[in-house]
Amino acid sequence: MPEAASKSENLLIGVDLGGTKILAGVFDRSLNCVSQAKMTTKAQRGADGVIERVARCIRDAVDEGDLDLKQVKGIGIGAPGAVDTENGKVIFAPNLQWHDVPLKKALEKDLGIPVFVENDCNICTIGVHEAELGGKPKNMVGIFLGTGIGGGIIINSKLYSGFNKTAGELGHMILEVGGPKCGCGNRGCFEALASRGAIFRRIQTAAKEGQKTVLTEMLGDNWDDMKSGDLRKAIKRGDKFVEKVVEESAEYTGIAVANIINLLNPDTIVLGGGVIEQMEDQMMAIIIETAHDYALDGTAENIEIIASKLGDSAGITGGAVLARRNLS
Amino acid sequence: MPEAASKSENLLIGVDLGGTKILAGVFDRSLNCVSQAKMTTKAQRGADGVIERVARCIRDAVDEGDLDLKQVKGIGIGAPGAVDTENGKVIFAPNLQWHDVPLKKALEKDLGIPVFVENDCNICTIGVHEAELGGKPKNMVGIFLGTGIGGGIIINSKLYSGFNKTAGELGHMILEVGGPKCGCGNRGCFEALASRGAIFRRIQTAAKEGQKTVLTEMLGDNWDDMKSGDLRKAIKRGDKFVEKVVEESAEYTGIAVANIINLLNPDTIVLGGGVIEQMEDQMMAIIIETAHDYALDGTAENIEIIASKLGDSAGITGGAVLARRNLS
Repeated sequence: MPEAASKSENLLIGVDLGGTKILAGVFDRSLNCVSQAKMTTKAQRGADGVIERVARCIRDAVDEGDLDLKQVKGIGIGAPGAVDTENGKVIFAPNLQWHDVPLKKALEKDLGIPVFVENDCNICTIGVHEAELGGKPKNMVGIFLGTGIGGGIIINSKLYSGFNKTAGELGHMILEVGGPKCGCGNRGCFEALASRGAIFRRIQTAAKEGQKTVLTEMLGDNWDDMKSGDLRKAIKRGDKFVEKVVEESAEYTGIAVANIINLLNPDTIVLGGGVIEQMEDQMMAIIIETAHDYALDGTAENIEIIASKLGDSAGITGGAVLARRNLS
Repeated sequence: MPEAASKSENLLIGVDLGGTKILAGVFDRSLNCVSQAKMTTKAQRGADGVIERVARCIRDAVDEGDLDLKQVKGIGIGAPGAVDTENGKVIFAPNLQWHDVPLKKALEKDLGIPVFVENDCNICTIGVHEAELGGKPKNMVGIFLGTGIGGGIIINSKLYSGFNKTAGELGHMILEVGGPKCGCGNRGCFEALASRGAIFRRIQTAAKEGQKTVLTEMLGDNWDDMKSGDLRKAIKRGDKFVEKVVEESAEYTGIAVANIINLLNPDTIVLGGGVIEQMEDQMMAIIIETAHDYALDGTAENIEIIASKLGDSAGITGGAVLARRNLS
């Protein structure tokens, strides 16, 4: 049971700002989540409209816990794109269609609380590293499989962001020259081979060509509503075709993990995101076996390849970690 | 003109121990090379036989410069494999067929001078970083294309070696799942697509199948003697087929560079090794263009992608840097 948050003057808020939904969580200083709120992003309303919703989601999370905004000392936000962390600006976020949005400044003006902004995959990585693994891994890579694929890198126990602050864009690592087309314009990216989007496209294309799958029955004509959980359910119901597609995705993920082991040789690789959360049992053993197959002899020894338990909360937890770090 | 080395009591020696040849260089403290010696490795003689030759090569280099071994304060050696740098042991070097060889101990006993050992690609990377680029790049990746492909990583201005001390094994990054077979047992590694070995195999296979190339005329039946320089000569003589194969190798190298930019986002990427030394003019423009094509928008901006000028001397220069660093 968390300490009495109702009386604490030291609360933190983590926000996960995604292309489709906003998630806000109130945390105590020990990173226990006290209360949460969630709403749709409505990116089509533009930056001002979305920022207004982020502020509302934060107020809702505070209210949900019978708390007061005055008890909150800092807010950490993960945004889906390239971030100027020093100034808290979102440089470019394709899913939000944002260019140079001063997120920190706008929210601080509205809420009167210090705000810190990071890339969404980086924030998930620091959430897993500090809250889930107690800051123990010295060199760690986080890989998050959802609609797309992103990652974050910890080197010498610190977030590593590189020259253009874009390090960890591992979803666009080429694994298969000439392979399937990716949203980024190239072919054969890890994301185009193993993300939820890639899995869905492969299933949908095959279904159109007459491949039998229980998903046709489960979803009717509403293929656009397909979720990672539906894949798990289809496999549980004995759908060998869906199982094969998910296993292929796990194999590609294992090859990506091997590439990271060969190049960076971290002590820990953590897999997360909706696809892993829903299909850990179907995917992790294959990912680990494939990674060991493809990593050069001796390079993968004793490296931990694990699934995060934080699930959907990785982002808000990382937001709270970011806020705590900047305030201490 | 270097300071008068003949009177210096502060000389350093760098050694590049390869599978086929040993190169030793004497350096002053400003990293000017004073004299050199070279001999074949003769790996078939076993570890003791090779170590005896390394010591002889060092003595020859000293003698070549009319110097005395007593003037040498430290020796840095690059070995082609996994190295326990703390104890100066070569854990595993496939090209030498070495397992757990106490290189430091054996040479120190023979020569009476402190010896420091590193992986060969790491030593080339620190040589380029410190001697060629004045230590300026904060985060840098070195990629060396020779018979095989290896690399080294500098993070926060220091050599980064990772959990199993094997970081930088970028030659075994998978770029093309199901692609050509690699010496490591996998398929589609960068090394199997773009190394000198890969280029030679592709040319030789095509020649056997009737492809016309001036190399048939240049080499007769001695395909095993083919060198990177022969490729350059064939291209200069208008051989479009050889040109195309070399360009393909440059394209794969550009894709590997893009993967590194997406993942690690270093400020500087340096290409080196025999293939680049001989064919910089044919390859670098293609490598840079392909890297920019494949790197995610915004990630490659202002990143330096350059060819090293050190050529064959990168290893011995890095050895001298390693010795200087450990002695200061």
